[in-house]
Amino acid sequence: MSNLIITISREFGSGGRKIGALLAEKLDIPFYDKEIIQMTAEKSGLSPDFVARQEESSQRNFLFSIATGPYTGFSNPFPYDSGVSDQAYFSQTDILRELAAAGSCVIVGRCADYILRAEEKLLRVFITADPEARRRRIVAEYGLDEKGSADKIKKADKSRAAYVRRYTGEEWGDIHNYDLVINSDYTGIEGAADIILTALKARGLLN
Amino acid sequence: MSNLIITISREFGSGGRKIGALLAEKLDIPFYDKEIIQMTAEKSGLSPDFVARQEESSQRNFLFSIATGPYTGFSNPFPYDSGVSDQAYFSQTDILRELAAAGSCVIVGRCADYILRAEEKLLRVFITADPEARRRRIVAEYGLDEKGSADKIKKADKSRAAYVRRYTGEEWGDIHNYDLVINSDYTGIEGAADIILTALKARGLLN
Repeated sequence: MSNLIITISREFGSGGRKIGALLAEKLDIPFYDKEIIQMTAEKSGLSPDFVARQEESSQRNFLFSIATGPYTGFSNPFPYDSGVSDQAYFSQTDILRELAAAGSCVIVGRCADYILRAEEKLLRVFITADPEARRRRIVAEYGLDEKGSADKIKKADKSRAAYVRRYTGEEWGDIHNYDLVINSDYTGIEGAADIILTALKARGLLN
Repeated sequence: MSNLIITISREFGSGGRKIGALLAEKLDIPFYDKEIIQMTAEKSGLSPDFVARQEESSQRNFLFSIATGPYTGFSNPFPYDSGVSDQAYFSQTDILRELAAAGSCVIVGRCADYILRAEEKLLRVFITADPEARRRRIVAEYGLDEKGSADKIKKADKSRAAYVRRYTGEEWGDIHNYDLVINSDYTGIEGAADIILTALKARGLLN
């Protein structure tokens, strides 16, 4: 019997982490976010700092994107680029598969929606929010000023998109890559968790 | 007191119309889809056939897109193009505003999410579905063959995107233009309606 896996992709400042944590609590299953960094570091022998930076500061590699882009038909980066960043990604892939095999869970970020796409009992969620609300949340949670929060949002979005594009060949935030997209400004944190539970019920994955 | 307005944008073959109709039934409020065509025809003096074709066969107007595109900062098309297609759009705008003022309702398509964006009690939903499921639905509902259904999907998506771009300056299906995006393959028709009801409750618009 396969496990219930809920992946949450999220814009920086959208409250996606809080929604995932609340959902895991409601479902009484583990929640994985930054824990994955430590596990990946242990598995790969890379430092946790280095692993942590991958998703948040990934830059598009132009030559790489030509080698694996739409012109060649290749999307698996492995044969073309086996640098240390990729080692982190592949170790992380192993970790995610082990977690999914070990039991039901909620996973935030890290291309989990893509890596675990063959899971039978999977729900892929994307959390978005209005730019103004994201700025407010970041100012409140990270102690940044207005300007700093706007810069941080821009950089984080760009990095996440580049990371997803690099390792999956897909577009981060493309409507077709998720089962459910929720604007957390509209629903609130609790409301978003309720909507996810309703989707699981609709799919017959929850009573 | 403002009325509850639920707008449903949808990919062709995603079941968006059925979801909207079921939702309206559950909420016991009117459902508007093709009815708007007749109302617009009456208001504008144009033929219902002509009005109907606007959303489904809109072509991107290249000169128009330059005049109103990101390079100029203009997004209101009125001063630049007041052809008969635009008359249909503006009559339809009036109709949608009248409907929203008259009472709570569910409206499918027709840029209603954009036109009614200032409504206080608004939920903007987008319904998507996997290409294969869309083809199956179209084959079953419209009696088209495999090839015909694939062509029809391609053409309908292109037209809807062009129509939305032309009149709103926004991208159809862009994650940021909706409060909720649902993949109807994942949830089913009934499940999608339940998720929409949960979102309305989360927002405090429904008990």
